[in-house]
Order: sequence, then structure tokens, then C-alpha cells
Amino acid sequence: MMISDCFAINDQGHLTIGGCDTVALAKEFGTPLYVMDEDKIRRNCRMYQDSIQQYYQGRGLVLYASKAFNCKEMCRIVNEEGLGLDVVSGGELYTALQAGFPAGRIHFHGNNKTREELSMALDAQVGHFIVDNLRELELLDALAKEKGQVADISLRIKPGIDAHTHEAVMTGQIDSKFGFALETGEALEAVRFAAQFQHVNLKGLHNHIGSQIFDIAPFLQAARVMLNFIAQIKKEVGIVIEELNLGGGFGIKYVDQDRPVPYGDYMKEISLAVVETCKELSLEVPYIYMEPGRSIVGEAGLTLYEVGGVKEIPGVRTYVSIDGGMTDNPRYALYQSDYTVMVANKANEPADQVVTVAGKCCESGDLIQEHTPIQSVEAGDLLTVLCTGAYNFSMASNYNRIPRPAVVMVKNGIPRVVVRRETYEDLIRNDQ
Amino acid sequence: MMISDCFAINDQGHLTIGGCDTVALAKEFGTPLYVMDEDKIRRNCRMYQDSIQQYYQGRGLVLYASKAFNCKEMCRIVNEEGLGLDVVSGGELYTALQAGFPAGRIHFHGNNKTREELSMALDAQVGHFIVDNLRELELLDALAKEKGQVADISLRIKPGIDAHTHEAVMTGQIDSKFGFALETGEALEAVRFAAQFQHVNLKGLHNHIGSQIFDIAPFLQAARVMLNFIAQIKKEVGIVIEELNLGGGFGIKYVDQDRPVPYGDYMKEISLAVVETCKELSLEVPYIYMEPGRSIVGEAGLTLYEVGGVKEIPGVRTYVSIDGGMTDNPRYALYQSDYTVMVANKANEPADQVVTVAGKCCESGDLIQEHTPIQSVEAGDLLTVLCTGAYNFSMASNYNRIPRPAVVMVKNGIPRVVVRRETYEDLIRNDQ
Repeated sequence: MMISDCFAINDQGHLTIGGCDTVALAKEFGTPLYVMDEDKIRRNCRMYQDSIQQYYQGRGLVLYASKAFNCKEMCRIVNEEGLGLDVVSGGELYTALQAGFPAGRIHFHGNNKTREELSMALDAQVGHFIVDNLRELELLDALAKEKGQVADISLRIKPGIDAHTHEAVMTGQIDSKFGFALETGEALEAVRFAAQFQHVNLKGLHNHIGSQIFDIAPFLQAARVMLNFIAQIKKEVGIVIEELNLGGGFGIKYVDQDRPVPYGDYMKEISLAVVETCKELSLEVPYIYMEPGRSIVGEAGLTLYEVGGVKEIPGVRTYVSIDGGMTDNPRYALYQSDYTVMVANKANEPADQVVTVAGKCCESGDLIQEHTPIQSVEAGDLLTVLCTGAYNFSMASNYNRIPRPAVVMVKNGIPRVVVRRETYEDLIRNDQ
Repeated sequence: MMISDCFAINDQGHLTIGGCDTVALAKEFGTPLYVMDEDKIRRNCRMYQDSIQQYYQGRGLVLYASKAFNCKEMCRIVNEEGLGLDVVSGGELYTALQAGFPAGRIHFHGNNKTREELSMALDAQVGHFIVDNLRELELLDALAKEKGQVADISLRIKPGIDAHTHEAVMTGQIDSKFGFALETGEALEAVRFAAQFQHVNLKGLHNHIGSQIFDIAPFLQAARVMLNFIAQIKKEVGIVIEELNLGGGFGIKYVDQDRPVPYGDYMKEISLAVVETCKELSLEVPYIYMEPGRSIVGEAGLTLYEVGGVKEIPGVRTYVSIDGGMTDNPRYALYQSDYTVMVANKANEPADQVVTVAGKCCESGDLIQEHTPIQSVEAGDLLTVLCTGAYNFSMASNYNRIPRPAVVMVKNGIPRVVVRRETYEDLIRNDQ
């Protein structure tokens, strides 16, 4: 049983993704290489969209959190699937617009949107702004006024939930740079404040408790907290909040021990909690937004590397050097993230060796995984790291002036390049 | 007393770098912005070069470790100062060659050089290869043979020294992906092995014990260990090792509490240890290479940001959001690195507030510094992070599709762009 259903092993014992032999992909497109399965991405999009139909009678929209993996082709796919798009910067917005993504289905996030970004988003007639702080509220209102517009907004709320995940990706607690705190009264103040403005239209509330969460309970708790706040606003301020964005953060399976909740179960249980809580509070069920990112693309991708030196240090460990590293996947260096690694050309052999996978950067911390089981590995082998579809390409750097890999999308067994490999010329393009 | 001698405060209370008002720089070139003082960089280059003259009668060469900060203009400056260049990838090599850097003074490093990189370096007639492992040795010999060349090499040796620094940047211990271990006999084996090849010429040994080290002792210890190994090689293998590369790793001053050893003292004390040990061992003093990177550029740079929201969470902390973050400086996210922050437009005011500086990425871990003293700060202020000349631009990413800042070099009070700011067009250049 492979860790994701888009991976398999063919007759030659090679790992496949979306029906393509990874050995053939590496040969055709070179290494390091990101490969993503388009069908898997589309299946995930549909599963979420279907849940909205099933559990909210279609009164909702799934927004793909594009920071997980953003490029023009991904925006096109998300658009074709009918989802909305969550962008967090002018650059993500620009990419979406260049891909022809309808601005009305774009939601603009961020704890520190600049004046230029807000202005650009207004000019593009972006559908929705998730306002993080009072300064942004004032700035957005002033800019919308200048442009003769009224911007639809939600306020980002910190519901005060402990999401049981890595500190660097936990966002719902009071000690966060994101949003307005509920427990201090700051959030209610912000609602009153927003209500005074003429060029913003307070339609909704937003919360996001963190990333890579394996537990339904905090999501249910957050939904209840948010709905209670909506009831409080109705009662105390007299405003009806029509929309509720429940964020994302559903955990995916990186390694065999991970036990992600099936996303359908999340959607179902959250919807039950929403409907039930609304009934208790005598509220109409608001229009629901969800923001999955990692759970749409993470398990749909892998990275291919050629193995260089294998350095066995007796009694210490064995380092396997690959032709990429923290430049294309900084997540181990940043968060000691777990990944499953395999020798793609020996995928049917037992993983009976324990190694540390090291990148080619001049930095000891440039590791992809430590003390991990793998098939017998030697120079020239094709090493793969599975489930790298999220936060790998998007976080990649040119540290050591290493060009970033290409991204190949496979569909029905046919591969195509969706992001070209960087060239050395690209690296010095802006050097004077 | 400022943390680096290229920073000062002018009559308007603004921070200056290399005689340029940072407020004026931000106005002219925008934020976020990397600024570097060319004169400071050149002074550092000369100090190292002078040490070679003074302590080794000129029998040595300082190699700038370009991974710390590499762009075409930096290569030109290093070339003008007469230093050599340490590159760790095809991309760094390409940049140097495009800048007209003489290939003969380039040393090529890396734990996993690819066949393409080795071939490219041979074609360019790079002066020296620092060979990391046996596979590379074989590959290099085979490629040099094909091309009818003989490549000058050093072997990278792990001297088994604990460098008392952050684990992610410690490299001299046996548990490292870099080089051949002394204590297991691997290094001596590698020397014997190298001696058999016809198309590599074993000229030297290399060691590097780590980065940001504040202590002279481990460097002296490493020098003695390496010289003893040279004596052992002479005795047991009959080969005279003519060159010794002592690496880099000298600590710089990021915050007031840092107590870096003056680089001249390092150079003097190491040279005394080298000369004395050679005398004890009846060795000629080898030709010496040193590889400073951070200590040449680190204190010569700063980053300028505009402050967006300031979020005070009573009883918790105050978040100051800036228009950059882990995308242009991932070192706090990676290593919790210390930095000194200031409000550049209020540089003469007391730093009597304690804040957390947060970036604009959609990620809680996107922090630049936590609980750090700063002048009273509000939206629109110009915040600066000092001593960002090393490992900031070079490690920058486009996470959240945020364009990378420009790099401005100042010289005699005149600024010029040496790396242009990335545009949104740049971000999608390779998107299909």
C-alpha cells in the first residue's frame, strides 16, 4: 500500500506517479524534478466541492490556498474545477490573474498587505479581502474610496484554539501575528469599527487554526466559537454576518505513521457542528468557505533526485547525497518534517537500510530526512521523496545559486512541463 | 557605538550606512531593500590579504566564500581586491565567470558536485577542486582524462574538531556529510587512492570546522591536526602536501553581546600555530588558503523594511509587521539567529520597547526576531535589521510568490543597484 493512491510500482519495479514511470521522467526531464499528478489534484478539488454540495446544499465555496503550490497552470486547474483561490501576496494575485483566474473568486489574505498590493487587488476587483488588522481596514477603506469602490471583507479572527501542531504553523492562538483576538474583545471592537466604514462591506468572519492538523476536535471547537461570535455580533452590534470562512489545515500523510482524518469526514463533521450550532443559536447557516491547500496538492507530488556520493561513517550513520536539497525542500531544515523516501528504480525491494539523505548545499543542516529506511542505495540511483506537492516548489530558494527544478504535471500517463527548470542565465538575470 | 563601523547616525537622527541616509535610500529604491557598504567589504578583503603578507610572507591566498553573498558585482569587487573565490555550485561558478573572475583563482567546493558541474568547471579551467569523496575523485579523474587535463585538487578532511557552534553549521566533526574522516583512517586511504590517479594532482588538504565561531582554540587545534596529518602523509605515503586550506567560519557581531575575535588576531594566532607546528614536525610551511565569507560581508550590510501593522497583544507581546520577512531573511526561522533591529528613522532615540518583528508571509514561523529591544515604532516607520550582508540575499526565496528585494551597494556616499528588484513578471517567467 503506497502512501498516496497516485503512486504505484510497475513491472520493472519502478515507482510510478499518475501512471508515469519515474525513471523515464527523470531521463526525459532531468533531476532534481518535481512531479505532480493532475488527476489526483482534480480528485481532491472535487471531493471538497462535492462536500459543499452535500453538506451545505451548495451554499459555500472551497478556496484553494495557493501558497501551498502556485503557478499559472495550477491556477488554471483550480479554475476549471470551479474552486475559488486564496492568495496572500501581490505575486500570487498576479500569477492568478495572468492565468486568467476570475478575480471575483479570489480572496486576498495576509497579515501585512502593502498599500500597493491592496491597490492592485482593488484594481483587479478581487472578490474578497480578509482583513487582518485595523490599519489595513483603514487603508483599504481609504483606497476603495479613492477608486469609488466598496470592498467585500471578512475579519480574520483568532478563536483562541490550540491546534496541536508545530509551533511555526500554529495560528489560532492569541499569541499570533494574524488577526483579531476574540478573548480580549479586540475582535468585537474591530467589527464595530468596520461597521463605520462606507467603502468596506463586512460580509464575513475568517479563522484558521494552523496547518497539518490530524484531529477534528479543534476544527469543531473553532466552528462553534466562530458561530457564537456571529450570534454575539448580531445581538450586540446588530449586524448579520453572512459568511464564515473556516480556514484549512487538514493534515496529510507524509509517512506511514501519519493518520490523517479522511477529508470527507472533516467536512461532514464540521458541517454537522455548524448546522447544529446554528440551530442552537437561532442563526441561519452562513455561506461557508474552506481553504484547503496542502491537502489538495501535498500527496499529489513527489521529487526525483539523482544519488551522488553515499558516505558510510561506521558506527555513526550513512549519508546519501542527492543533487538537490534544502533549496528545493527546506521543510526538514525548518521544521524537521517527516517524509517517506524511496529508491524509485528499486521501489519493489525491501527498505532495509537506514540512511540520512543530505542535499548538495554547503551547509550541514541541508538534510531532507535523517535515519530513514530506504532500499539499498548507490550512486546513480534515482531517489524520490514522496508527498512533496505542497510547500516545496513554493518555498524553494536559490541558495548556493542552485537553479530551481522544473515542475512536471502528469495526466493520464502523459507528462508536460508546467514550470520550466531555472537556467544559470535566470540566476544572474537581475545582476548588474 | 554602532554594531558595525559602517553604520552611523546623522544629524536628522537617521541611520546611515557607508555615509548614505537609510531613509533616503528607502525612498529612492523602495523597501524591502538590502544595502551593502562597498568600502567596508573592501576593507575586510584587504585586512585578510594583508594578514597573508604579514604572517605567511605572501605565501597564501584568501578565498572569498561566495555562498555568503554572490552576485556579479561582488565577484568583480573580490577580483579587484586580488582574492580568490570559493564556489560551491555550477551557479556560483557561472556567476563568477560571467563577472570576468579569473578561473585560475576559483576553488570549487561541494559534497555532491554533479558530472555536469565538474565538466563545466574543467572546461572553464577552474584552478582547484576540493574533493569531498571517492566517487568525486574517480569522476573528476575520468572527466579530466577525457578532456586531456590534470586537475589540481585538495581533499576535504574532517579533522574531528567540535567547533562550539549551531549544529546546522558545524562541519568539522566526524558525523558530517562533508569530507573524509581522519580518525577512521578514511582520509589516509583517500590520499593513497588519489595518488594513483593520473589526471588529478593532489596538492593540498582542506578543512572547515563550521560557521560563526567565536573562539580561536578550535582553529588552532584544527591547524595542528591538519599539519600532523601532512607529516603523517609524508612519512607513510611519501607525498609532500604543499597547500593547506584552513577554511573559514570566523564569527561576526550580530548583537551587542557577541564578542567576535578581531580577524587579525585569528590570522596571527593561527599563523603562529602553523609556523610553530611546522617547525616541530620539520615541515616546510605550506601555502595557506583561508575562506572567510560571512566575516567579509556580514557586518557590511543591512536590510530596510517599511513597518505595516503594529499589533499589541496585552500581556503577550507586540508584533511589528514588516514588508519582508523569512523570504529575504530565513535565518531566524532556520536557526533562531540573533539580529539587532532599529527604527532607522529614529535611530537616535532610546530602544525602550520590546517587540517581535514578523514578516508578511502566511506562516507563524515567519519571524525576524522575537522579544527584541527597539525604538518606539509605528506604521510607516523604516525598520532596519543590521548585519544582514551574509546569508540573507543568498538564502532568499519567493515563498508566497514574494519578489526578492534589490541589492544596493553604497560607496563614498553614492548608492547604486547591483542586483535589481525582482518583478512580478520574473516570478512567472518559467510558468507555462
